[in-house]
Amino acid sequence: MTNLIAAIKETAAEVRAKIDRLLPVPETVEKRVVEAMRYSSMAGGKALRPFMVLQSASLFGIDKARALRVAVALEMVHCYSLIHDDLPAMDNDDMRRGQPTCHKQYDEATAILAGDGLLTRAFGVIASEHCLFEPAIRIQLISELSKAAGVNGMIGGQMLDIMAETQEDMSLSEVIRLQKMKTGCLFSFACESGAIMAKASYEDRQALKSYARDIGLAFQITDDILDVEGDEQSMGKAVRKDLDAHKATFISLLGLEKAKEQADSLSYQAIAALERFDEKADYLRDLARYIVERRS
Amino acid sequence: MTNLIAAIKETAAEVRAKIDRLLPVPETVEKRVVEAMRYSSMAGGKALRPFMVLQSASLFGIDKARALRVAVALEMVHCYSLIHDDLPAMDNDDMRRGQPTCHKQYDEATAILAGDGLLTRAFGVIASEHCLFEPAIRIQLISELSKAAGVNGMIGGQMLDIMAETQEDMSLSEVIRLQKMKTGCLFSFACESGAIMAKASYEDRQALKSYARDIGLAFQITDDILDVEGDEQSMGKAVRKDLDAHKATFISLLGLEKAKEQADSLSYQAIAALERFDEKADYLRDLARYIVERRS
Repeated sequence: MTNLIAAIKETAAEVRAKIDRLLPVPETVEKRVVEAMRYSSMAGGKALRPFMVLQSASLFGIDKARALRVAVALEMVHCYSLIHDDLPAMDNDDMRRGQPTCHKQYDEATAILAGDGLLTRAFGVIASEHCLFEPAIRIQLISELSKAAGVNGMIGGQMLDIMAETQEDMSLSEVIRLQKMKTGCLFSFACESGAIMAKASYEDRQALKSYARDIGLAFQITDDILDVEGDEQSMGKAVRKDLDAHKATFISLLGLEKAKEQADSLSYQAIAALERFDEKADYLRDLARYIVERRS
Repeated sequence: MTNLIAAIKETAAEVRAKIDRLLPVPETVEKRVVEAMRYSSMAGGKALRPFMVLQSASLFGIDKARALRVAVALEMVHCYSLIHDDLPAMDNDDMRRGQPTCHKQYDEATAILAGDGLLTRAFGVIASEHCLFEPAIRIQLISELSKAAGVNGMIGGQMLDIMAETQEDMSLSEVIRLQKMKTGCLFSFACESGAIMAKASYEDRQALKSYARDIGLAFQITDDILDVEGDEQSMGKAVRKDLDAHKATFISLLGLEKAKEQADSLSYQAIAALERFDEKADYLRDLARYIVERRS
């Protein structure tokens, strides 16, 4: 696990360095929006999604420098979604990753535009000729990313999440569907992306999708556990918000012990899905354990 | 001009029909966000940008059905920008195109997500295999659209526009730069897109860029004129907001008469830029006049 954490940290640093190069601050007045984009995308998140992209690529021998561009595009999409989710009209959060949220540090208008800017740029980063994959592969990556981040994926999940605040008695299957859309779809894109870059077989793609589906759910269950057990300091954001809002979570539906068992079991199921891959998949195997054992 | 207006209306109807097919309402709870996306993108805007795309494509003999997909993607980007611009944290507008703005009809959270959804989908619409251009062309369209809509284009222009509200004594050149970014960049993409689809010559692209630059500015000057001379009913939105906010506009900087002359002169300059094209460019020539002669 020590090696894994070091490897994730290395990826996070590489992602930050790449964003630094991709988003230079202009000298002109509108630089404010670029500064806000940098503030929220270089703030030291865990960079799990970029790590999954790089690990997925390495399974198929794809050069890390080439895959990093796709990893960064995905991180931009993730960070835009955090900026918009934190807005007063949405989750109304003041802290994120241990620092004020984008609209607290700047203002709401700038935060909305910074999110829009990251999302717009993400697609351009993959479309660019500097993204060293043939056009047909870049197009497929963009197409899949648009689906994963769209109304049948992340945005739909966020809509459900907002509506859940006023909906009583959500069932377990409804909560699972919400989380699959909100978190699972970007995880799936991340884990499958290397297979797209390498034009890998249908079976390889299915295995990675299956892995992603399981760790996605395990990740979300663990988030709910940490929301109950964690402290604000190590989480870098407010905790027990869901509990206070009487929102249906895996904990309220399953109870703490059952939720932990479920996350654990999904983690091992994810590892089993990687059976067809050799030791190049070891970091992904470790990641499946890390996701349920993490404390923040 | 009668023919032009009929042709623009025909395009608007085709765009609406295409969006209707591309954005089916799901049966599931999150359909709310899709309904909001449809509400704001099928509301009967003028569809000038899609019209420019189709006319640019027709210059090079590109089939209308193929170009329509690109036109719709661009309209989605334009509509997302209107939804976000109308938000309380931005321009705080209640009416748009003669109906309540998205956040008034739904709520702020849904409006933010609907904008995000349209932007995300726009790139997917071009990336899709149903977009019948070879991957290298689709990639170039996505790359140019990302630039035009991004921080060095539309988003940067919107950031400038927000900052202009508190900035005194904006110069004419600053206002021109703001409008070129906010409106001009999407106009440029629209007018150039046919040349990209057809892999046209550098000279053809430059001519279309030059045309777009001139009508973009003429369009914005005319918007400022209509904000002073128009009435709320025919505009479908609030008027005289800029005047009330003591914001620098082409009118405050040039005076009404000089502004009209300037718009007129830009319109003829745009027509001159189309010299190299035959009668297939006649609608674009008419459009350059319409943009300054319109009353709404």
